[in-house]
Amino acid sequence: MLRVGLVGATGIVGQQFVVALQQHPWFQLTQLAASQRSAGKSYRQALTDPGSGAFRWYCPEAPAAPVLDLEVRTAERLDLNSLDLVFTAIESDEALELEPKLAERLPVISTASAFRMQPDAPIFVSTVNAGHAKLIDQQRKARGWKGFITPQPNCTTIGLATTLKPIYDRWGLNMVIMTSMQAMSGAGRAGGVLGLDILDNVLPYIPKEEEKVEQETQKILGELNGGSITPAAFPVSCTCTRVNVMDGHTEAVFVSTRHKASVEEAKAAFREYRSGLEELGLPSAPRQLIIVLEDPYRPQPRLDRDAEGGMATSVGRVREDAALSNGLKWVLVSHNTKNGAAKGAVLVGELLTKQGYVGS
Amino acid sequence: MLRVGLVGATGIVGQQFVVALQQHPWFQLTQLAASQRSAGKSYRQALTDPGSGAFRWYCPEAPAAPVLDLEVRTAERLDLNSLDLVFTAIESDEALELEPKLAERLPVISTASAFRMQPDAPIFVSTVNAGHAKLIDQQRKARGWKGFITPQPNCTTIGLATTLKPIYDRWGLNMVIMTSMQAMSGAGRAGGVLGLDILDNVLPYIPKEEEKVEQETQKILGELNGGSITPAAFPVSCTCTRVNVMDGHTEAVFVSTRHKASVEEAKAAFREYRSGLEELGLPSAPRQLIIVLEDPYRPQPRLDRDAEGGMATSVGRVREDAALSNGLKWVLVSHNTKNGAAKGAVLVGELLTKQGYVGS
Amino acid sequence: MLRVGLVGATGIVGQQFVVALQQHPWFQLTQLAASQRSAGKSYRQALTDPGSGAFRWYCPEAPAAPVLDLEVRTAERLDLNSLDLVFTAIESDEALELEPKLAERLPVISTASAFRMQPDAPIFVSTVNAGHAKLIDQQRKARGWKGFITPQPNCTTIGLATTLKPIYDRWGLNMVIMTSMQAMSGAGRAGGVLGLDILDNVLPYIPKEEEKVEQETQKILGELNGGSITPAAFPVSCTCTRVNVMDGHTEAVFVSTRHKASVEEAKAAFREYRSGLEELGLPSAPRQLIIVLEDPYRPQPRLDRDAEGGMATSVGRVREDAALSNGLKWVLVSHNTKNGAAKGAVLVGELLTKQGYVGS
Amino acid sequence: MLRVGLVGATGIVGQQFVVALQQHPWFQLTQLAASQRSAGKSYRQALTDPGSGAFRWYCPEAPAAPVLDLEVRTAERLDLNSLDLVFTAIESDEALELEPKLAERLPVISTASAFRMQPDAPIFVSTVNAGHAKLIDQQRKARGWKGFITPQPNCTTIGLATTLKPIYDRWGLNMVIMTSMQAMSGAGRAGGVLGLDILDNVLPYIPKEEEKVEQETQKILGELNGGSITPAAFPVSCTCTRVNVMDGHTEAVFVSTRHKASVEEAKAAFREYRSGLEELGLPSAPRQLIIVLEDPYRPQPRLDRDAEGGMATSVGRVREDAALSNGLKWVLVSHNTKNGAAKGAVLVGELLTKQGYVGS
Repeated sequence: MLRVGLVGATGIVGQQFVVALQQHPWFQLTQLAASQRSAGKSYRQALTDPGSGAFRWYCPEAPAAPVLDLEVRTAERLDLNSLDLVFTAIESDEALELEPKLAERLPVISTASAFRMQPDAPIFVSTVNAGHAKLIDQQRKARGWKGFITPQPNCTTIGLATTLKPIYDRWGLNMVIMTSMQAMSGAGRAGGVLGLDILDNVLPYIPKEEEKVEQETQKILGELNGGSITPAAFPVSCTCTRVNVMDGHTEAVFVSTRHKASVEEAKAAFREYRSGLEELGLPSAPRQLIIVLEDPYRPQPRLDRDAEGGMATSVGRVREDAALSNGLKWVLVSHNTKNGAAKGAVLVGELLTKQGYVGS
Repeated sequence: MLRVGLVGATGIVGQQFVVALQQHPWFQLTQLAASQRSAGKSYRQALTDPGSGAFRWYCPEAPAAPVLDLEVRTAERLDLNSLDLVFTAIESDEALELEPKLAERLPVISTASAFRMQPDAPIFVSTVNAGHAKLIDQQRKARGWKGFITPQPNCTTIGLATTLKPIYDRWGLNMVIMTSMQAMSGAGRAGGVLGLDILDNVLPYIPKEEEKVEQETQKILGELNGGSITPAAFPVSCTCTRVNVMDGHTEAVFVSTRHKASVEEAKAAFREYRSGLEELGLPSAPRQLIIVLEDPYRPQPRLDRDAEGGMATSVGRVREDAALSNGLKWVLVSHNTKNGAAKGAVLVGELLTKQGYVGS
Repeated sequence: MLRVGLVGATGIVGQQFVVALQQHPWFQLTQLAASQRSAGKSYRQALTDPGSGAFRWYCPEAPAAPVLDLEVRTAERLDLNSLDLVFTAIESDEALELEPKLAERLPVISTASAFRMQPDAPIFVSTVNAGHAKLIDQQRKARGWKGFITPQPNCTTIGLATTLKPIYDRWGLNMVIMTSMQAMSGAGRAGGVLGLDILDNVLPYIPKEEEKVEQETQKILGELNGGSITPAAFPVSCTCTRVNVMDGHTEAVFVSTRHKASVEEAKAAFREYRSGLEELGLPSAPRQLIIVLEDPYRPQPRLDRDAEGGMATSVGRVREDAALSNGLKWVLVSHNTKNGAAKGAVLVGELLTKQGYVGS
Repeated sequence: MLRVGLVGATGIVGQQFVVALQQHPWFQLTQLAASQRSAGKSYRQALTDPGSGAFRWYCPEAPAAPVLDLEVRTAERLDLNSLDLVFTAIESDEALELEPKLAERLPVISTASAFRMQPDAPIFVSTVNAGHAKLIDQQRKARGWKGFITPQPNCTTIGLATTLKPIYDRWGLNMVIMTSMQAMSGAGRAGGVLGLDILDNVLPYIPKEEEKVEQETQKILGELNGGSITPAAFPVSCTCTRVNVMDGHTEAVFVSTRHKASVEEAKAAFREYRSGLEELGLPSAPRQLIIVLEDPYRPQPRLDRDAEGGMATSVGRVREDAALSNGLKWVLVSHNTKNGAAKGAVLVGELLTKQGYVGS
């Protein structure tokens, strides 16, 4: 078992990491870090409101007893010598300071956006661009680190990049237009969406979201050569909105391909898409990466977000688009806090373990 | 006062007509028609559930006493000699049979889709294509009718066509891509959206909706010459979804213009757009047709649907689109049951009265 | 394995029966019945909308292949000789006609209200009044049936009766006052709650619900002697409302006990309540019947409805009530479609099998 | 015109005060106070997010230009010499310090709970206990203040106290049991209810709410004699919950009266209830204090909260209660931010003006 630390353990994404890790066959969660306020308490205590006794746990899956008994420390007090890997679930400005310190010694897989656009930091969607792992060698060398940082993509990027991949590989892409209808859990709890604001409503703006999705998609689908990634050349244009949904981002995608693909060919490409990781036996990987639904009323976030343990991308309404040259359009649903955050990061940890970047 | 009949008076759109007409300065609602089940009852009785005593009224605005006292008839028993105009709020298959019979004698303004694609039937968004009224002469002549039928567009088309108009007029359009997030009231009550289906969810499909929006938009922005409308040539591609919102359709629009327009120019074109009807003093017309919002979190359906009595289209997030040539994108909100249905139809009635097609 | 038939298989409660039965260790679902429209089709076909191809399945758990391949018949065409037990999930008026015919030959466990108030029909909450089973002998004898009918209680009654039981047993009850906040799934789909009606709203009335809960509670907690049940003497007064929740009924309960119970004693009584069925090994029975939560913000329907596979009742906010003599109050959550409908009925089937009323 | 100051002007309740005051025929809003962060800005600037440009306004009614141009100060910098009355919309701990300083000089009408249980502070529901105003003389004398403080009741108390009043006056009350289903706006925005917590859910606990409602109801319906209020003797027991509703608290009430009242008599008492203030012509007073609805599906918060400008209490489902002696039960809806907060406070200001406590 590899020994795993978690920074930001008490927040909502931190809790999702606990769920993704607590019965993991390869990784054992041995150290938890959070803010000064929680330091010195057990994880159970740190989650319990001292006034009301309320237990601040936000995942549908309950935390297991051994994790609840772990002591919470500040990140500074982590015993890095006793860890093989660190996951972080912290804000971007905090990540900017902390993660390089951790990376001097250890692999760091981060859900913060801080390092996503660094040229030597691969953004992994494990099932899309595992080949970018070689960039880690570059990063270590240039920065003189024993460890490294790999930032996870934005939760909205993952479903989009996953469905674009088989289309791009086979027919090329001229451009991508996407409108998202994003779930509330993507906004977290601190500064999260108020019920007053989302009831009977759609919020048409999520700060910085569109730029992230546009740039990350190009980087993830880019080509690694000579120690850097050349972003994919096709432009991506998004409108990102928030709707009254708990979990599961829905995206309406319109693309123009370079070479003509029929609807049936596109559906076959989705269905038959393989990441090349199938034989690695990664515990958190979905068996079916992209699920194609023929029912025109699908995918729906409530019905499809949990497919394959929240790690598959569900696609439906694949049809021709009459406005774009070689136009195709579809609707996708992917789980923003499973595949799109903690569990997706754990899958990256599994991938990098198999590739020898973690634990050896 | 012109004497107005309403067919389909007890349904949700019928009730919206009652609200739009009950204090109207030009139109007096004098005859109501509904199904056999309501015939012979007062409107009040027809809306009252005999078992529970529940009053089946679905608009925020209450019905006025004089309307509640009107007798409801079947459409066959309407006294057409005592009417100047009929509004219909019925299903498409029923409209197909009934409306031609009415149109032999009277102007019929219909919210059904039955006649929208007939070459001699103008689809009016009053503030966009008032000039198409001349097609009515054609229709009367060809069909030998004293009256005529003008079908209202789909509720999703109106906001789109309204915002495209000033852009198209000034810079031309190569193509339009739109994703809608539509309110539940658009689905009505019979066969309406169940709470079980929409809670914590998005429904990615509305039967026939996308085709309607695509075709109607081209027809509304088309050119009338020589007795027929040449649809606008730019392709329109939509994905229409349903979200957990009561009223107000939100649409994320992406367009490619023929000639380059800057964001500021586009906003000015929206703001300064005039329909040419301003001097007619139409009672249901909005003063400001398109409201441009600079707050990036706007428009929101709950906050913006009621602007100008539900007759304005609110636009925000106007910005460049990097994927399309001369690309622009924006988000709009328009009220699907006011501008998009009954009140929009009443405005058409007002327009056609001023143009001499009604009441003379 | 006992051979089980299901009448009303395509509706929402029928689907919940399929979920509760498809991997059952004792019961094998061998025959399905539904309306004439579905007859002759496979269950899969019967659930598939012929127009759109949509698959009309409403449970989070997917149906298994063997069930999907079963042929659907009309109830008249069931082969009763090849069945040991029938579950019904039909409307009350249909039940009134059909169930006696089935009961001539077979045990019938019904979710309809038709026979609940018949003096010789026990209403089972398995974990509360298993002793009422002897009434079945009476019913068979009086009606000359080989089988029998046991109606399930209303979904709102179950949580209430379950929490009252340990209090009533130990301290007696003078009276019960209850306000429910019920989930939408309790209203089913035909005639179900429209999104338009429940969004941003509470519906303060559910037809006939309050009377059912009041009478059924007294009957379930009543005493069987001399071949009939004497209802419990304490009055029950309810206000039943509908809220914007998918599954899980929340009930605010206020009681006056005959003998004084402290809050801590009441909590202990809840926690320690045993049904006496523990040693029977009934597959659908919860291990913990009543879960007492100390967090004042619990129980919540979304967080607590699925406790113990939806078969436990969760209780919180147990405190003194200052208005009633020996007053206590609490809030409970129970799952209306698991414990409160299909799965609760399957548990009754298990109980009656062990008691020898089914399958021997 | 009386000159009015508003402390806490930028918060959600402060904004509701602006709406209630901006077109008031007697009161002119001349000074605004808020936190240091807003001081020195215009009200418009103070509400505008400097980063995004978003305008933080939360009421359906727009603010008028003159108010938007007012300068915001800190409370310490208010010019008390130029004011006749101050409304406060601040947290309880801040009120505890600030309000006595203001009251030395001026009448203070407060929505904070800080002074509600002070023996010399009347809690007004204008239409229920206007007679308690004489306690103000007591308060001024004892504290040596030129002004005074009158705290508004909790938003949940108002509807309850209003409907209890005519019943209590005529038949007396033995006890009251109430379960509330409260709207989200009651929780405000700072620390407000997250969409993640309320979607598909009911929250069974609102800190301190039940105690407030129980005590305030007794005080409001209490008797003023000899310079202090003797609380009404009947006990009140509440369970207060939060539901997914924007505005409008729904309450299920069960009472035992001392003398028997029939359902019809109770309904008549509700309908005919007069506050005695009718002839005063208070601008914010409802014409009909209690609206009795016969439709069993009413009152509903979305349909009934705005009755009489949000100042009426709507009652329905009045029926006998079989559990309590002389039992009656009903459901009420009252608007928690209009009658229950700012507009209710403005009505108190009007009342005290007519009674000579303000502006003379």
